[in-house]
Formats: sequence, structure tokens, C-alpha cells
Amino acid sequence: MKVIEVHRSITESNDRDADILREELRQQKTLLINLMSSPGSGKTTLLSKTVSDMQADTRIGVIEADIDSDVDAIKMESFGAKSIQVHTDGMCHMDAGMTRRGVEELGIEDVDIAILENVGNLICPAEFDTGAHLNVMILSVPEGDDKPLKYPLMFSMCDALVITKMDTLSYFTFDLDKCCDHVRKLNPDVQIFPVSAKTGEGMEAFEAYLKGQYDGRIGKD
Amino acid sequence: MKVIEVHRSITESNDRDADILREELRQQKTLLINLMSSPGSGKTTLLSKTVSDMQADTRIGVIEADIDSDVDAIKMESFGAKSIQVHTDGMCHMDAGMTRRGVEELGIEDVDIAILENVGNLICPAEFDTGAHLNVMILSVPEGDDKPLKYPLMFSMCDALVITKMDTLSYFTFDLDKCCDHVRKLNPDVQIFPVSAKTGEGMEAFEAYLKGQYDGRIGKD
Repeated sequence: MKVIEVHRSITESNDRDADILREELRQQKTLLINLMSSPGSGKTTLLSKTVSDMQADTRIGVIEADIDSDVDAIKMESFGAKSIQVHTDGMCHMDAGMTRRGVEELGIEDVDIAILENVGNLICPAEFDTGAHLNVMILSVPEGDDKPLKYPLMFSMCDALVITKMDTLSYFTFDLDKCCDHVRKLNPDVQIFPVSAKTGEGMEAFEAYLKGQYDGRIGKD
Repeated sequence: MKVIEVHRSITESNDRDADILREELRQQKTLLINLMSSPGSGKTTLLSKTVSDMQADTRIGVIEADIDSDVDAIKMESFGAKSIQVHTDGMCHMDAGMTRRGVEELGIEDVDIAILENVGNLICPAEFDTGAHLNVMILSVPEGDDKPLKYPLMFSMCDALVITKMDTLSYFTFDLDKCCDHVRKLNPDVQIFPVSAKTGEGMEAFEAYLKGQYDGRIGKD
């Protein structure tokens, strides 16, 4: 399992680089998803379950971005996903140039959906377009229902919000309706998926959404 | 309850500003603690319990730093702590100049321990000296025991690590010994406090540590 070191892009034109990458990937029939969340929200567990469920008919590749370690990429490989670990040289987010490096090293000729697991951080990744076609964020039940009030940018810019660890709902004080209300005030069009990767609750709807996004944005053939 | 907007300091000499603030606070007999963690790790709940337990003989003031909202400062006031909410203008961390603004607005003439609840983020706050005498970080059980591998800088630079939500240990896969081993490899001198603010487990040891730090760094009179 390969680990690559990436550095902040020299170019200042991140938005333009992101648009170019997005269009190149569309032509190559790969949907790129930027997955963002706090540390410890269950990104890797959600991805493992998604890969296991979908791999019969969808080839998923994973770019794991972290400041250090390769535990996530090793875990993803064990679930049968083509994976690469990217180290961000201390950077708190991925930009389009860094994402391109990851995509090239991963190799997407045999990948339908490439998922960038961004650095665990609810703030900085929301400010940088990675070139992804779809921005998905995760909020886990133990983090609390007030997080949309504190980190409004990320909740505003995501296409979909996955609320993870739903099996722990009875253990924590988390008001799902209140949370969804906060989010929809910031982002009326967001798709919300409450799930538990542990019990499987809600996973089918999330996976159907990903397939629908592939068909809609990339095309069926 | 006052909310102030702070902006990135114009000065480039953050380390020098931090040293000056630290020394001024020492002369004014106030211990400043920089409390850092992920979003949703239980910083505010830990602080509420700490204030309730200690307020009979220690006057605690709280500077709540967030990108948006004032829910934390309102909560802290309800527990009897002098509080102020600082909005960081989208910034993902506090620096020494921003902290000075917060300290001045809070007013420390009647505060023994001032606690800066930094922006919820395991990465950027570790890079900026706030002027605090003591850096304390929180890791919550639901986040997972592998976090020291992924966010090594913060685990390396903190004086104390509080492991919160210990009452949920049976619910999550979290190996406390493994976690402590990871942390001590990065930071052999760190003090580790496993606690549950919900059940009270471990709180006494953490509060005794804070009092000891006040006496040692600021002096008893």
C-alpha cells in the first residue's frame, strides 16, 4: 500500500484547477466525492461498509488524506477497495492540486467512484474546492446536534449530510429533528441520510443516492 | 452575554506576543489555560462540571471561541462562570492577539483561572501559541484510540490530555492502554486524565491538577 507526500499547490488558481480536474474526471467516467468531517466521526467505518455493499457492481477507489499514519488506507484495502494514503505535510485540508496528485497515484481507469477522505476537520476543508463532483459531510451523533450553528460554512456547502452512529442515539442527547432544522436553514437543498454502519440502518438509501449521483453526473455508459 | 468579533492579528510576531501576554497574566495572578479538541468532544460539558466543582474556592472565567453561535457562552454563564463569546471571523484557530482581545473583554481582575475554549479543530490550534500557561487537549472515547497517530502535533505539544466520555467505553471500540501508549510515545511527559463529566469519574484528579498548576505557575498568593 503506497503512501505519498503532497504539498500545498504552488498555483493560486485553485478554483480553476478544481474545475479542470472535475471535467477531466467526468470525461474519464469517474465520479469524485469529497468526504469531510471531524476527526473520529466514523468516515472510515462508513466507507468500509459502503465499499462492501457496493463492490459487486461499482468499483470504488479511496484516497485517504491525513497529516500522518496509514491506518485508514490499510483498513480500506482490507475491505477490497483500491486505496492510496496521502500525507498532507501538516496541511489541514486538501486542495485541487493535492487531490490531482492523489487521483493520479491511485489510478482511475478501473474506478467508477473515487472517494477522497479529506483531513478530519470541520473548518478548513470547506474553503478549498478539491475538484470533486460531490461534497458529502458526516456528523456523528456523539458530536451533538448544535454543530451546524458552530461550523456553518461546511454545513452550507455540502450536497449531502450523513448523520452517523445512529445506533448510539439513545445514549447521547441528540435531537435529530432539531439538527436537521438547523442544517436546512443553512442549506435548503441538502440531502440528509441518518445511518448506522454498525447495524446497517439507512445505508441502502445512502448507497442508492451515490449510484443516482453517478448516473446523473457521469452517465450510465 | 457579550459577543465580540476578532480578526487575525496584523503582527507577524505571534510567539513574542504570546510570551508577553503570558507574563502579564502571571503578574496579574491569572492562570490561562488553552483547551483544544475536535468539535463535539465534550469541551463545554467538561468545563461546566469543572466550574461547578471548583467555584467555591477558585474563580474561573471562560473565553469561548467559535466561528459562529453563542450557545457555549450562554451555557457556561448558566453554570455560574464569567464568560465571553469570541467569534473568529472564519478563522480555524486563536492566536495570541485574538486571545488578548478575549482576555481584555472578559476582564481578569476577579478571575483566578481563565480558560480559552479554542475553536474545535485538532490541527490548526496546535500551531499557534495563544499565550496560555498550560495547553490541555481533549480526546473523547467515541473519536477512537487511533487519533494520536493522525494528529501527532497536538498530542505532542499538550501538557495534559483529558480523555472524556469514559462512561461510553463499553459502547465503543476504544483501547485506553493502546491510546495512552500512542500518546506517551509522542509526549512522554504528558499528564493523562480519563474522565466522565456525566458520572463524575476522574474529575477530582483533573481538578486537583488544575489547582496544582495554579499554585506552581502563578503562586499561592
